[in-house]
Amino acid sequence: MPQMTIDEVARIAEGVVEGDGSRTVSGVAPLEEAAADQISFVAEARYFPYIQASQAAAVLVARDADVPLPAHMAAVRVDDPRRALARVLPALYPQRVPAPGVHPTAVLGDDVEIAASATVGPYAVIGEGTRVGERARVGAHTVLGRGCTVADDAVLHAHVTLYDGAQVGARSVIHSGARLGADGFGFVWDGTGHRKVPQVGGCRIEADVEIGCNTTIDRGSIGDTVVGEGSKVDNLVMIGHNCQIGRHVIIISQVGISGSTRVGDGAVLAGQAGVGGHLEIGAGARVGGQAGVTASVAAGETVSGYPARPHREAMRAQAAFFKLPELMKRLRELERAVLGK
Amino acid sequence: MPQMTIDEVARIAEGVVEGDGSRTVSGVAPLEEAAADQISFVAEARYFPYIQASQAAAVLVARDADVPLPAHMAAVRVDDPRRALARVLPALYPQRVPAPGVHPTAVLGDDVEIAASATVGPYAVIGEGTRVGERARVGAHTVLGRGCTVADDAVLHAHVTLYDGAQVGARSVIHSGARLGADGFGFVWDGTGHRKVPQVGGCRIEADVEIGCNTTIDRGSIGDTVVGEGSKVDNLVMIGHNCQIGRHVIIISQVGISGSTRVGDGAVLAGQAGVGGHLEIGAGARVGGQAGVTASVAAGETVSGYPARPHREAMRAQAAFFKLPELMKRLRELERAVLGK
Amino acid sequence: MPQMTIDEVARIAEGVVEGDGSRTVSGVAPLEEAAADQISFVAEARYFPYIQASQAAAVLVARDADVPLPAHMAAVRVDDPRRALARVLPALYPQRVPAPGVHPTAVLGDDVEIAASATVGPYAVIGEGTRVGERARVGAHTVLGRGCTVADDAVLHAHVTLYDGAQVGARSVIHSGARLGADGFGFVWDGTGHRKVPQVGGCRIEADVEIGCNTTIDRGSIGDTVVGEGSKVDNLVMIGHNCQIGRHVIIISQVGISGSTRVGDGAVLAGQAGVGGHLEIGAGARVGGQAGVTASVAAGETVSGYPARPHREAMRAQAAFFKLPELMKRLRELERAVLGK
Repeated sequence: MPQMTIDEVARIAEGVVEGDGSRTVSGVAPLEEAAADQISFVAEARYFPYIQASQAAAVLVARDADVPLPAHMAAVRVDDPRRALARVLPALYPQRVPAPGVHPTAVLGDDVEIAASATVGPYAVIGEGTRVGERARVGAHTVLGRGCTVADDAVLHAHVTLYDGAQVGARSVIHSGARLGADGFGFVWDGTGHRKVPQVGGCRIEADVEIGCNTTIDRGSIGDTVVGEGSKVDNLVMIGHNCQIGRHVIIISQVGISGSTRVGDGAVLAGQAGVGGHLEIGAGARVGGQAGVTASVAAGETVSGYPARPHREAMRAQAAFFKLPELMKRLRELERAVLGK
Repeated sequence: MPQMTIDEVARIAEGVVEGDGSRTVSGVAPLEEAAADQISFVAEARYFPYIQASQAAAVLVARDADVPLPAHMAAVRVDDPRRALARVLPALYPQRVPAPGVHPTAVLGDDVEIAASATVGPYAVIGEGTRVGERARVGAHTVLGRGCTVADDAVLHAHVTLYDGAQVGARSVIHSGARLGADGFGFVWDGTGHRKVPQVGGCRIEADVEIGCNTTIDRGSIGDTVVGEGSKVDNLVMIGHNCQIGRHVIIISQVGISGSTRVGDGAVLAGQAGVGGHLEIGAGARVGGQAGVTASVAAGETVSGYPARPHREAMRAQAAFFKLPELMKRLRELERAVLGK
Repeated sequence: MPQMTIDEVARIAEGVVEGDGSRTVSGVAPLEEAAADQISFVAEARYFPYIQASQAAAVLVARDADVPLPAHMAAVRVDDPRRALARVLPALYPQRVPAPGVHPTAVLGDDVEIAASATVGPYAVIGEGTRVGERARVGAHTVLGRGCTVADDAVLHAHVTLYDGAQVGARSVIHSGARLGADGFGFVWDGTGHRKVPQVGGCRIEADVEIGCNTTIDRGSIGDTVVGEGSKVDNLVMIGHNCQIGRHVIIISQVGISGSTRVGDGAVLAGQAGVGGHLEIGAGARVGGQAGVTASVAAGETVSGYPARPHREAMRAQAAFFKLPELMKRLRELERAVLGK
């Protein structure tokens, strides 16, 4: 692990040192776990009380935070401790880049193109006509179907599956167990059974996307399913066929989005939310955790609850909900007074 | 990709051509994406307005739909555009069937029987005594335990796991990452810890079933977990130990069914619904999205909400729910009028 | 399959035989499926009526249960039929322990240490510096990153992924498709895009834990994510970065726990429940199925509903909820009587 002085940390964090900047640190840890050669950070005022007891050599903290520091601790004053941390971490924990090359156990189909700077791990299986770009990494046991594209600098962790024709954009990261481009769930009843509607569309993940572990994104039935540039999708999410997810969208764990729904740029869907099919979630909209979205949501709107409604309305109804037993009692008293029953 | 005339498409779709049937098409696309050599389809009236601007050579549309077509476009008039599409797609997008044979990297246990017409992909691992039927396909990296059965024409995609003894019926399709026959979640507290109850039952998937990506279906504790003939299960679904899922059941993504519950033939469970253990969901019942089923549901009934109730009742209560703040205000006014408070 | 007399079964079950204990049995089955050489069990009075028609040779039943037995059936009277079953099953269904050794197809990094008594399956990939303990089993296709620890007697089924540095405690069982130690979902907006915050913490599974199929447990951002000793986690569960799950906790299928939440010893989270981030679920607390936990829960408390409230309060409000339409009608009548409108 690299070592650097607190002064160097401050330079990377674009901050200013308060105290002794010449000491050396070699890692980051939470306040209560940090050792004397580690730095820590505090982003919220409610954690300020933990600073006094911390052994950390230095703490990343907001410029204007009024926090007394213990004698052994320096402060690195920054505009935004979270962003500063995001800058410091790669320097203290440099990612080990595997050596380029195709592991001898990888099985390659005909006409596969793999850039010389790419890495293909043990037991990867790559189908006919698939292309792997510059510096891309294909993890151990990852299976790419026929005619897939893995663009430059994309990272596919172990055990990913790309069905035939799926595309992963530049610099995107696909975590272990994600399944991209499987058949959408399309059947028609033919009088005796559910008959499969062949799913012939594509699955396109654009650039700078991150897809979590065991998430599933189905191909389009006809036409493509798309996850737009810069969007981040957590673990165990389901995105149905022909969904169009915009750019810079955040989708938290276990969300489910039914087929043909469009999600606008910058929208945020919180954990376990469910969205019906053929809906429109506007740009910048926010969907609350576990919300059940049964109608389109306007741009910028925040919805929650089941069925999902504008958040303020949902909150008011929920507040009243827990007063229901009392409300019924009051109603009964009124009835007694008015109707004598 | 095969090419065919619009007349040929109409023959497969069991429809009638309106316009020039001699032109050649080579694919299907949504109205707004279709090129001049592709056909499209419209199943719902709300999409009729998009027909005028489409470049498609022809459109599959209901016989009685009153839709003006642009000059370049033919119509293929059919009884049901969705079913017609389901017939046309396999002709225009024929599935590539891999050559039979066992990949040299597959690891086979003792007494494994694999039909000569079956395909076993790279790095498949097949346990002792397991049988793979005629024309069945075992995908790359799929792991079959000991004593499993993969019946004729079944397709297991890449990265599937069958635990010991799991059975997959004829023509069934199991998608990537599905886990069939893992231990059910059975523990008893012994005073110092949760002690595992050995799970010794089976996991039986009958014929013509489809199981989605990353879905998990546990083996029975004693006795079997069963998914009946023709049922279709979407991605990321959980089916607990000893569940008995009937025939032609539809289970949408992220549904969870607790142990020992029975689901009758033709029932439909919408996305993210949860069903408690030891319940009975009657034949043809419908469970709404995100519904929380805490009691058995009668055959043919539709339930929704949490806890799930007959849909009409749940809808009425939900409608009233969002009027709660107003209702409280009215109650307060009444109290003022009647009780002077 | 081993055979034993009913007398032997009774000895293992710590019970007393009623009837002929000399007969031989060779398996366990549910009452309605049991053959004449199998035993069955009844733990709940509602299943007593099924005893008469059962073919089972013997039945495990509570000492004081007043159940008439058919002539062919013996009873094994025990304190607790479920615990008795948990003792009898391993004797009748002994687990086959694979022979120790590393499969020749396994790919091992530098400085990997594997105990001579451990088993490593086909196509396992084990990263640099990883340690596999005595009698531990690493399933086919399982991928262990660099610097991981698999302690003595731990079992990793097929297709598990451990990211770099993840630790699995002694005797713990990790089911197929579980992903341990992937990056937490941490991003900061930098004005043009969501910038990844490097996730450098650990993922530590303590001893005697069981983790279900396709469950995902992320590493800490800084500091560790921990699942405590003896806890049992079902399939398709998501545990976010820096969560601290206590000892002997039960987490049922499809539960989601957001980052930095602490769950106390012995707590139980029922299926599909969701818990927000940075919360505290007290020791012994119980969270109902599908509950949406948005605030900390006191030790020993039972909560349910959305947003989760003490169970009794939630039940009362839900009961009133379905009377809302009637309540509105009564309110309207009162208004007519009082206000003349």
